[in-house]
Amino acid sequence: MQSKNLPVAGILGGGQLGRMLLQAAANYPVITHVLENDESAPAAHLCHRFTKGDIRNFDDVYAFGKGLDAITIEIENVNIEALEKLESEGVKVYPRPSVLRTIKSKILQKEYYSKYDIPSAPYHITNNAAEVTALKDFLPAVHKSAEGGYDGRGVEILKTEKDIENAFDGPSILEKMIPVHKEIAQIVAINDKGDTALYPPVEMVFDPYLNLLDYQVCPAEIETKTLWKVEAIALSVVRNFKSPGIYAVELLIDKDGNVLVNETAPRVHNSGHHTIEAHYSSQFDMLWRIILGYPLGNTAAIIPSIMVNILGAEGHSGDVVYQGLEDVMKIDNAFVHLYGKSQTKPGRKMGHVTVLSKEKQDMLHKANKIKRILLPTAQGH
Amino acid sequence: MQSKNLPVAGILGGGQLGRMLLQAAANYPVITHVLENDESAPAAHLCHRFTKGDIRNFDDVYAFGKGLDAITIEIENVNIEALEKLESEGVKVYPRPSVLRTIKSKILQKEYYSKYDIPSAPYHITNNAAEVTALKDFLPAVHKSAEGGYDGRGVEILKTEKDIENAFDGPSILEKMIPVHKEIAQIVAINDKGDTALYPPVEMVFDPYLNLLDYQVCPAEIETKTLWKVEAIALSVVRNFKSPGIYAVELLIDKDGNVLVNETAPRVHNSGHHTIEAHYSSQFDMLWRIILGYPLGNTAAIIPSIMVNILGAEGHSGDVVYQGLEDVMKIDNAFVHLYGKSQTKPGRKMGHVTVLSKEKQDMLHKANKIKRILLPTAQGH
Repeated sequence: MQSKNLPVAGILGGGQLGRMLLQAAANYPVITHVLENDESAPAAHLCHRFTKGDIRNFDDVYAFGKGLDAITIEIENVNIEALEKLESEGVKVYPRPSVLRTIKSKILQKEYYSKYDIPSAPYHITNNAAEVTALKDFLPAVHKSAEGGYDGRGVEILKTEKDIENAFDGPSILEKMIPVHKEIAQIVAINDKGDTALYPPVEMVFDPYLNLLDYQVCPAEIETKTLWKVEAIALSVVRNFKSPGIYAVELLIDKDGNVLVNETAPRVHNSGHHTIEAHYSSQFDMLWRIILGYPLGNTAAIIPSIMVNILGAEGHSGDVVYQGLEDVMKIDNAFVHLYGKSQTKPGRKMGHVTVLSKEKQDMLHKANKIKRILLPTAQGH
Repeated sequence: MQSKNLPVAGILGGGQLGRMLLQAAANYPVITHVLENDESAPAAHLCHRFTKGDIRNFDDVYAFGKGLDAITIEIENVNIEALEKLESEGVKVYPRPSVLRTIKSKILQKEYYSKYDIPSAPYHITNNAAEVTALKDFLPAVHKSAEGGYDGRGVEILKTEKDIENAFDGPSILEKMIPVHKEIAQIVAINDKGDTALYPPVEMVFDPYLNLLDYQVCPAEIETKTLWKVEAIALSVVRNFKSPGIYAVELLIDKDGNVLVNETAPRVHNSGHHTIEAHYSSQFDMLWRIILGYPLGNTAAIIPSIMVNILGAEGHSGDVVYQGLEDVMKIDNAFVHLYGKSQTKPGRKMGHVTVLSKEKQDMLHKANKIKRILLPTAQGH
């Protein structure tokens, strides 16, 4: 039924990143497959072939990937061994499994930055709570569990000695707390030939409780010399991986203008959602260009933008109803993306809205309004 | 598996218009179903539920539409009786079946324009070749078969008496040939409440042989008073249908600045493809706003654009290979849409490319280059 002349690409995971990847895929001649456990996941219905399965399970990933031309991920928590076997059998994997190995462990990731002289916060490796106690003079610090951290899980802030009771009792990184001036994300594309393209960096504002992105501004307001540092550091992170793909390098800028890498995601990322409408080639378009062997796209902004995450309202769990949606849809130059998740719960990423404008105050005003009025709530609550 | 709280909308037809509708649908919480005979059609894989069936068959359309919240079309040639029954049973149909009845017959369509004093070219109804012969003094004229015309089929140009041998020997419209200065398309959105929104009109350039759109420029270069006429006429066409939906009104402007309606498509349309990247709310986004009961979107252009159709190369039929794709993908600010059709044939719509620029000459230069170098050819040809 499907033509043999179209390339076949698989995606591990069927969440909102997969959904937006598949929206972009439909601009190109490519057959798309998705592996995902949840048949009603945001991306499950947008592919040529959906396979129900566990992206963390060797057999599921290997069976899914065998015979594909290319495979990519929309979440890091996948079975790396299966991807290594697929890679050895000629399937192109974006990013390469070696990158996933490095990034999946916060310890290996920190060691990677050190190895390539990439600035990041001073740290110690700890293997149990006792080792953290021994390092009490190193506080205030951020304790990060080596594996499994995601969206605020696996991270504890240890300000003083008494916070050590919250420390992880397993392999972790104890990272010096940096007085953060700005948080920046730099998205970098790199193709099979090693050509790179950098998006303008964005500035991020986080929700202090959920540690989820609250809103982000593009372009970031940083000095030119800081921009150069950001770009040089992000390029160094990406080039040393020796793997094509899309990378979101998260960086911290301190009060003195020092730039430190916080962490890297080797995939399309929340911090690049605004590129769908605001940039010539979106991060999703760019990944298809890389996978399909097309030239890299134009990363320039058509117009400045702010992106707001739409998170499930506090105290609401169940069938979602979007309070305030009609009012938000009336806002000119606001692009609403709801991910089609049927169930909301507090803090769940239910969608995002991108606002375009040449006037920063106009954008900020609209973004704050959207944040305030668009609430995923539970039906009959 | 699917949540009961999400609306369910069906699309009749699975071509490229359906494909782009479904790309836009994924920004919103809506369950999508597609009815289409060809399981490998461009839109077949982008919906929650695909049903193989004939959109012209009563039983297929009725069974598909029963129980849906809403249904729309991506081609006019559908079973109208089934849509009428569905409408009577409470399914919202965009556009209403009464509109499809009027538009499907070129005779009823012309009579509709006359009834509402909408300017269009003078015409006669002919029922056989003899009636055309009797009207030889009315030439030069365009002879249009009442039903079944599409993409250049069902239309004959009768310049002189000897061309009458090409006339249709059945119900047709013989329309006075107008010395055309410009061809314009005006897309209009109208929602359930009767609110309307007009996109800036576009100017179209046709391939004289295939009668397929060659490229189009947005905004059209027309005088302000002509723009007002275009808008007023298009609004009159749409409002008198008394049906929500998206409409593409094709108009002719003669040398004296008179504006005449050529024909109307009651659906998303080739002449609105540029709105995906160049306008705040695309025609596809707009139709979902109408179907889902959201406020109408902003029709303004972010930036001027040219859209080029990519047609199957002459003399090539078979598994498609896109000659020149790599070179086109290198062009900044060119957005490539290939529809994923596995087979090319001469003149088949295989994709389109939208070029954005503030400089018209830059756009024209790029559009001509794209037209020249991007060729869908047959593999091994």
